[in-house]
Amino acid sequence: MLSKQEAAQRVRAAKVRKNLTWARIAEAVGAPVAWTTAALLGQHPMSAEQAQAAVGILDLDEEVAQALQLQPTRGALETAIPRDPTMYRFYEVLQVYGPTIKELIHEQFGDGIMSAINFRLDVEKVPHPEGDRVVVTLNGKFLPYQW
Amino acid sequence: MLSKQEAAQRVRAAKVRKNLTWARIAEAVGAPVAWTTAALLGQHPMSAEQAQAAVGILDLDEEVAQALQLQPTRGALETAIPRDPTMYRFYEVLQVYGPTIKELIHEQFGDGIMSAINFRLDVEKVPHPEGDRVVVTLNGKFLPYQW
Amino acid sequence: MLSKQEAAQRVRAAKVRKNLTWARIAEAVGAPVAWTTAALLGQHPMSAEQAQAAVGILDLDEEVAQALQLQPTRGALETAIPRDPTMYRFYEVLQVYGPTIKELIHEQFGDGIMSAINFRLDVEKVPHPEGDRVVVTLNGKFLPYQW
Amino acid sequence: MLSKQEAAQRVRAAKVRKNLTWARIAEAVGAPVAWTTAALLGQHPMSAEQAQAAVGILDLDEEVAQALQLQPTRGALETAIPRDPTMYRFYEVLQVYGPTIKELIHEQFGDGIMSAINFRLDVEKVPHPEGDRVVVTLNGKFLPYQW
Amino acid sequence: MLSKQEAAQRVRAAKVRKNLTWARIAEAVGAPVAWTTAALLGQHPMSAEQAQAAVGILDLDEEVAQALQLQPTRGALETAIPRDPTMYRFYEVLQVYGPTIKELIHEQFGDGIMSAINFRLDVEKVPHPEGDRVVVTLNGKFLPYQW
Amino acid sequence: MLSKQEAAQRVRAAKVRKNLTWARIAEAVGAPVAWTTAALLGQHPMSAEQAQAAVGILDLDEEVAQALQLQPTRGALETAIPRDPTMYRFYEVLQVYGPTIKELIHEQFGDGIMSAINFRLDVEKVPHPEGDRVVVTLNGKFLPYQW
Amino acid sequence: MLSKQEAAQRVRAAKVRKNLTWARIAEAVGAPVAWTTAALLGQHPMSAEQAQAAVGILDLDEEVAQALQLQPTRGALETAIPRDPTMYRFYEVLQVYGPTIKELIHEQFGDGIMSAINFRLDVEKVPHPEGDRVVVTLNGKFLPYQW
Amino acid sequence: MLSKQEAAQRVRAAKVRKNLTWARIAEAVGAPVAWTTAALLGQHPMSAEQAQAAVGILDLDEEVAQALQLQPTRGALETAIPRDPTMYRFYEVLQVYGPTIKELIHEQFGDGIMSAINFRLDVEKVPHPEGDRVVVTLNGKFLPYQW
Amino acid sequence: MLSKQEAAQRVRAAKVRKNLTWARIAEAVGAPVAWTTAALLGQHPMSAEQAQAAVGILDLDEEVAQALQLQPTRGALETAIPRDPTMYRFYEVLQVYGPTIKELIHEQFGDGIMSAINFRLDVEKVPHPEGDRVVVTLNGKFLPYQW
Amino acid sequence: MLSKQEAAQRVRAAKVRKNLTWARIAEAVGAPVAWTTAALLGQHPMSAEQAQAAVGILDLDEEVAQALQLQPTRGALETAIPRDPTMYRFYEVLQVYGPTIKELIHEQFGDGIMSAINFRLDVEKVPHPEGDRVVVTLNGKFLPYQW
Repeated sequence: MLSKQEAAQRVRAAKVRKNLTWARIAEAVGAPVAWTTAALLGQHPMSAEQAQAAVGILDLDEEVAQALQLQPTRGALETAIPRDPTMYRFYEVLQVYGPTIKELIHEQFGDGIMSAINFRLDVEKVPHPEGDRVVVTLNGKFLPYQW
Repeated sequence: MLSKQEAAQRVRAAKVRKNLTWARIAEAVGAPVAWTTAALLGQHPMSAEQAQAAVGILDLDEEVAQALQLQPTRGALETAIPRDPTMYRFYEVLQVYGPTIKELIHEQFGDGIMSAINFRLDVEKVPHPEGDRVVVTLNGKFLPYQW
Repeated sequence: MLSKQEAAQRVRAAKVRKNLTWARIAEAVGAPVAWTTAALLGQHPMSAEQAQAAVGILDLDEEVAQALQLQPTRGALETAIPRDPTMYRFYEVLQVYGPTIKELIHEQFGDGIMSAINFRLDVEKVPHPEGDRVVVTLNGKFLPYQW
Repeated sequence: MLSKQEAAQRVRAAKVRKNLTWARIAEAVGAPVAWTTAALLGQHPMSAEQAQAAVGILDLDEEVAQALQLQPTRGALETAIPRDPTMYRFYEVLQVYGPTIKELIHEQFGDGIMSAINFRLDVEKVPHPEGDRVVVTLNGKFLPYQW
Repeated sequence: MLSKQEAAQRVRAAKVRKNLTWARIAEAVGAPVAWTTAALLGQHPMSAEQAQAAVGILDLDEEVAQALQLQPTRGALETAIPRDPTMYRFYEVLQVYGPTIKELIHEQFGDGIMSAINFRLDVEKVPHPEGDRVVVTLNGKFLPYQW
Repeated sequence: MLSKQEAAQRVRAAKVRKNLTWARIAEAVGAPVAWTTAALLGQHPMSAEQAQAAVGILDLDEEVAQALQLQPTRGALETAIPRDPTMYRFYEVLQVYGPTIKELIHEQFGDGIMSAINFRLDVEKVPHPEGDRVVVTLNGKFLPYQW
Repeated sequence: MLSKQEAAQRVRAAKVRKNLTWARIAEAVGAPVAWTTAALLGQHPMSAEQAQAAVGILDLDEEVAQALQLQPTRGALETAIPRDPTMYRFYEVLQVYGPTIKELIHEQFGDGIMSAINFRLDVEKVPHPEGDRVVVTLNGKFLPYQW
Repeated sequence: MLSKQEAAQRVRAAKVRKNLTWARIAEAVGAPVAWTTAALLGQHPMSAEQAQAAVGILDLDEEVAQALQLQPTRGALETAIPRDPTMYRFYEVLQVYGPTIKELIHEQFGDGIMSAINFRLDVEKVPHPEGDRVVVTLNGKFLPYQW
Repeated sequence: MLSKQEAAQRVRAAKVRKNLTWARIAEAVGAPVAWTTAALLGQHPMSAEQAQAAVGILDLDEEVAQALQLQPTRGALETAIPRDPTMYRFYEVLQVYGPTIKELIHEQFGDGIMSAINFRLDVEKVPHPEGDRVVVTLNGKFLPYQW
Repeated sequence: MLSKQEAAQRVRAAKVRKNLTWARIAEAVGAPVAWTTAALLGQHPMSAEQAQAAVGILDLDEEVAQALQLQPTRGALETAIPRDPTMYRFYEVLQVYGPTIKELIHEQFGDGIMSAINFRLDVEKVPHPEGDRVVVTLNGKFLPYQW
């Protein structure tokens, strides 16, 4: 049985081979692009229909479709602190602004957390005269501490 | 000379004592709330005016005002992986969605990063029938790899 | 301003001095014993009433009562892997049964997690002819992955 | 000779292929579901009969049956701090409530530990109007420190 | 309130000052020498009588006697791998013979562990013509894995 | 050339296949059982005669015999802190009793260490009415610090 | 699909086989030597033309050319602290001069960083009577903290 | 006796108090600015004359002058991987370009290293129409491996 | 009671104050210079006579003399990998030549170790036309593995 | 292309097969034994002649000869702290005597280091009535800190 990591590698290779974008694949799958990308990289399970749509557009076989439907064991960083600069910046945000985010969540909502489960994220390109901006929106349900 | 960490502790204590919100202090300082919170927690240097406004509303002394203007050595997490659940969820987002964010930045912008320096963030409360949502917006300039 | 850790130390000392049990203090506070213990050890914020009741029975001062109401930065282990044998056994359970628990949650509930926020725990003593048993019940709301 | 880890991978694949649940396999094996799952994932040795029953329902060969009977070297987490969110929540419980559990064990039982060897666990689904609850029960013999 | 670590430091100082041995103190306490040493170093709680006997012979005050009776949070190594050569050799034994000990326990007893709770140890000096030998005996109840 | 680790895996497999005990193999090798087990697991070099005796009873080939005679690079734990419960208990003994053992060695012998090189260990089963006991004896030459 | 790491290994082998220098390959690729070396070692993506030129001079196949064009996940050190002495010296520079560099950047530019993205580096040999000198120039755009 | 770390803190405070730059202090000391900064931050020993000049301009006392002359134990990072963004970028350079620098040193000089002892560094501001540039020059003697 | 670390700090300060060398102090103590230095830095216990001689020449009090006689808990590095360049080079030697030293010890002596207990070291300055050389001699008794 | 690690494994196997010593191989290579051992284990590059001599006496092929000439990425320890007892003792020497060595280098030479690049080491067997001694001589050029 193909692991989800092996399936993800085949997906990446097929995407290059067929010259597709994640946006185009997501459209075929019928799901948000960030969710679809995460699922194809092995972090979310797909439904049978979604998996079929994905292997269809990527021209991959049934074995990949099955792997895409498996329950993942999540966690994608190779080291506790990410080494890749594009990913590191988000860790840096946490180092510099972690306590700030915590303070503002507590001020606005009380004691609790932003769910990372009932959660969605978007990555957008926002044009700006001094240089385009990456806008990443993290959107999670507030969960109050409740005994 | 007071360190920025000691100043931050005095700020936290005064904020409780005077029953202020970060939003109210930010208003007095005349700066965005997330920036102001980060600055008061020791992650950004304030201008003399901002520092005066802050110690004014918090009823703190000149020593604190000076510390708030110092250049910080940034980095606020006590452990490489944050232990506090409210902060951990953002690390979890990185573990689950880090490669997804990387893929989408590269797809939309090409090779490069979201700056964490030319950067702002906002924490908002968005009402929702099934439970309010925490929306954290990370907004940084795209910096293309350029030799 | 007293930190929550310092307040916890004073609480422990007073508890020994006054020869109280956590159960007895919890009764005075009017909250479940595990929650009360966690709160007094600095992991949950108390309401003003709860804090007054706690310092009342423990004969501590206002400074402690204020610390007990502060929003905590949670996380109590001194090392990533606990060294104390009583606490280590729970880490060992995770090492031996972590994937089992994960499998059974997914089998019974689908993809998601047991919340550690909308959560309660109980520690009970269950008599048994071959030796009493410690029964720890972890009870958290199921949160399905939801985009 | 097949290692227990390789056997576990074949078990997982066969379980998907034959569309079985852990509950159904445990029934065939004649043992509690959590124990059976842990054993099939390589954390407990099975008796010859249990192993035969397991490979029978999973349609696997003798080589797997032998591996299931081997004495395991236990420990299943890939990193000291689990990265998968479903498993991480149990580590978070330890970070937030570890000292609380320790205090309550000592209060109720005296100095000692909950055995993780003379031990069983159950994972249950408890319906609740505001959302079903995951109830994990850890049940271990109390072992007093005894010289 | 004195912590057990602070009490241990006072014990060590008094032992030097009064030129006592652990053996002599253990005799006064009426308990085995290894247990007594561990207790005075903060790893076991003493009864009131034992604590009184200990502070008596060491000429320490009531504050120390109270600390010696507190429930310890155990774990005495400053680093995960001990740096002191006398202690390191025992870690080295584990590196070289750990799997051997595991195999022999399983061969003689079946699946289970040597308890470190229902446990005692002795350190003896055994004269030998080619140089005296240190004999450390670890003696723990066998605990079979039992569901 | 077969590595000692690969040889150890073949030894383990053959031992299961031929249903042998370490005690029986040690008898054939003509050496103490703990030493023989450690040697077959790759932590000691065997003489040519010992290696022949071992592969003889295990029905393995010359390649394994050669590997058993190689000088090892010792160290068998997969992680600095062992994860397997049977091995972890010995690490826990070090955490709880390390300084005690150090104190008692110094008290009885002066400044120095127990050698882990001029050293032997035994694992015995000692019957006891309340449950059999595992007795592990560590026996090493005392080496005084000597310039 | 060949990974960038595998492509880098083939590049290294071909470079030895064909007795080329990085300088000579860079000339063929038409890019600075440090950038070209980094790209061929898998840290930068090449354009199709650059990749063709590289595989041309190195006599490698299309598969390598494709791998060279992939977006990298950057980060090349095998351990957080480099072990190779030639690379370690740069880590040592950071240990000894990190805060100095930070102070001087802030003194000359204000609060901000040297970009490692809009960045180039050169390694030069500067003859010197007492021994040639390695001069490494790090040249990055200053990015002021800007909200 | 004041430690070099304590002296460094007093230097930083005095520098703010007297509103001096590192460049101005270095001028008074009569040494390069980067060297002077490193020395005042505790990474190099000063001569008696340099130390007198430094405390003179900073208006500090003899105790600081003595500490500045002590032989340092070098190493200034609080964590193995620096957390401050201004310093982290240099670690990132090592992660992305470490092997490139190594290759180019070996290509130009043969087997050896850039000395970090017979070494100097400069931090310069180079104006540029698209934004000023930070240019850090590392200049160390080449040391060939020599037996 | 003064700890050995505190005593070491007082020794260092007095040595600067009185402008002594380790060689001169060792002469007064009547012991080899490396041993004396290690003992004064807290890594070896001194006899009463040695301690008296040391505090005599250093003009320190009885409290220091007592601390110098205490049994040390050895281990002096602040981080597992030393950060100070002078000390790091010896770690680098271990990284580059560790397996070489191991091979040569085994080739010349058979299976065993160089004792670090029955051990002495010397640091010498050997003049050389191309630059003086540091010669560090490690001299330890060979200990054969012996059961 | 064979890596230096793979070449080292073939060298080790051939050395056993042909029953050679490192001393005998070094003689054939015409270089010091410690250098030759390090080079054959992959830590130094050999010249073409040396590599030919080595594969000649070891009866290995051209592929190995080429690998022996490659520039190494140095660093041979599998873990930051070596686990093998023969290698660990040298790490222990650093833990116990590191600061002593540092003090003595500075006392005799001033501020600087012993080079590990312009460096040689020898391992000798020195007979002694109470047991032969391992004498390891580290001999490196002194490098003064020089700006």
